[in-house]
Amino acid sequence: MKWFAILISALSFSMVSWGQGSTDPLPSWQAGPSKEAVQSFVTRVTQPESPDFVAPAERIAVFDNDGTLWAEQPAYFQLFFALNRVHALAPEHPEWATQEPFASLLKGDYETALAGGEAALLEIVMASHAGMSTDAFAELVTNWINTAVHPDTGRPFREMVYQPMLELLAYLRAMGFKTYIVSGGGIEFMRPWAEAVYGIPPEQVIGSSIKLEYTMEAGEPVLMRLPEINFIDDQEGKPIAINRHIGRRPIAAFGNSDGDLPMLQWVSGGAGARFALYVHHTDAEREWAYDRDSSIGRLDRGLDEARAKGWTVVDMQKDWRQIFPTPNP
Amino acid sequence: MKWFAILISALSFSMVSWGQGSTDPLPSWQAGPSKEAVQSFVTRVTQPESPDFVAPAERIAVFDNDGTLWAEQPAYFQLFFALNRVHALAPEHPEWATQEPFASLLKGDYETALAGGEAALLEIVMASHAGMSTDAFAELVTNWINTAVHPDTGRPFREMVYQPMLELLAYLRAMGFKTYIVSGGGIEFMRPWAEAVYGIPPEQVIGSSIKLEYTMEAGEPVLMRLPEINFIDDQEGKPIAINRHIGRRPIAAFGNSDGDLPMLQWVSGGAGARFALYVHHTDAEREWAYDRDSSIGRLDRGLDEARAKGWTVVDMQKDWRQIFPTPNP
Repeated sequence: MKWFAILISALSFSMVSWGQGSTDPLPSWQAGPSKEAVQSFVTRVTQPESPDFVAPAERIAVFDNDGTLWAEQPAYFQLFFALNRVHALAPEHPEWATQEPFASLLKGDYETALAGGEAALLEIVMASHAGMSTDAFAELVTNWINTAVHPDTGRPFREMVYQPMLELLAYLRAMGFKTYIVSGGGIEFMRPWAEAVYGIPPEQVIGSSIKLEYTMEAGEPVLMRLPEINFIDDQEGKPIAINRHIGRRPIAAFGNSDGDLPMLQWVSGGAGARFALYVHHTDAEREWAYDRDSSIGRLDRGLDEARAKGWTVVDMQKDWRQIFPTPNP
Repeated sequence: MKWFAILISALSFSMVSWGQGSTDPLPSWQAGPSKEAVQSFVTRVTQPESPDFVAPAERIAVFDNDGTLWAEQPAYFQLFFALNRVHALAPEHPEWATQEPFASLLKGDYETALAGGEAALLEIVMASHAGMSTDAFAELVTNWINTAVHPDTGRPFREMVYQPMLELLAYLRAMGFKTYIVSGGGIEFMRPWAEAVYGIPPEQVIGSSIKLEYTMEAGEPVLMRLPEINFIDDQEGKPIAINRHIGRRPIAAFGNSDGDLPMLQWVSGGAGARFALYVHHTDAEREWAYDRDSSIGRLDRGLDEARAKGWTVVDMQKDWRQIFPTPNP
């Protein structure tokens, strides 16, 4: 009994010191209310003597990806992957020379290509994401993420992740949390690199998906990707997908847009201590500034609800000392 | 370097001794080819110096539930839950007195009730499994599993699990495996008790599902269960669901019927060491004996393929010293 008490107090001391001691687990976060809110929540749910203590198995944190863990301007990065695929596939599709949205896309006229709205986008995604096995697709994604660079910054896309969020992911995991991605992006687009970039293994990546077909090819079973939407993991889809994949209600949720609002509501609506955080894109100089009027990552109703409910809203300009990781020399 | 070598050799020694030493991790398994095949596979993939060594993150084992982890005769146990719900709901549904399949069901004439085949079954499932929140459903399932007993044996359903499979689950986990359920049964029907009964947490339970709706009730977000099929996790659905939920190809698969065949093919088709096992129901005395002609858990094509490919086929009568756990006194 005595040893047990010593162990517990040693444990809780080490947790407190991790959060408040000399080694700051969140060095890219400016001291202030956002950082304090994160750390105070984590302390409350992890200290054994705390009335808000949560058992490790229930310490689940869900993160949106586009605009929350990595940037999303001037377009979702997955679209650049799709464009890359359309260019690579063009020689096999001479009809694309005159067929929209491909004709404009191949000429580099993205505005005309995307003028068709969601239907045009869907055509591009289906043409570039389907018609191969899951293994072949993973290889295409891996090759792309290891080489592709952002058109404006010239940085590799995989380095356009937010340094403060990388620190937050590592901090939460060190405190016994399981971290999940819950993104509108493609589940199989994220899995090949999420572990290397975020430390999040494939089984903790949730996203949108297209239908699959189980079939035999030369006597070997394969899963073929079909040009048909299976599930869109956005808006109300997020709490539904969380329930389906995890089967537990997370206690912390992180997003940046109205598309994340149902997820933040669902997570903060549960019993016990809950944490909801919005990343607010306020830094036009170091990143991009956008919210209520943006067609990508619109944050409007969510911002109002966050303020009304007292959720944490990160002001990227003020709260983050650094946006992107320092590149390796 | 030296300390590292000592550590590795200590680790591998402890793994070998767990598998072959004096404390048998599988005491309910009769010595013989089935038990030997399981242990030799586990040893091969867990010993660091083995050419077939598999990193812990990739040690994923998938288990069918009905007929593999617990019994499934004279009908899938989930059907007894559904019948129980139909009886409980009957007072609110006077029309059921004359409406099939409910009229026959309520009279106890299951044969006539189920004469309508899949359509009748679907009606029963929808009437009993939908129209409430996910939380309310979990509570109904929990109450049922803690009280319901099998009509023939009088044992609680939750104790009609296979003792040798409980030992196998624990053994695999002790050897660094992650164990998943991949069942045709309802995902939300299994999750409330899978951890207590099998040691498998909710996020490692995969199954069939109905559609959900995210909605607000008195200002609180809820997920409502809709009377519409979302996904049937059987046959070709199993490898598809494995890909969607886990995003890795498991290295070991355990089933008992033709419905598990695509899962066993998919798992054993991958590179490196692979293990596929069928539980063959051969024990009419201690359990039930059925295979090629059974309407529940038919094992026909699967048995042929298992023999052709050299998969392990457990003969329940010969290979298992005990079928069900010894009841607590």
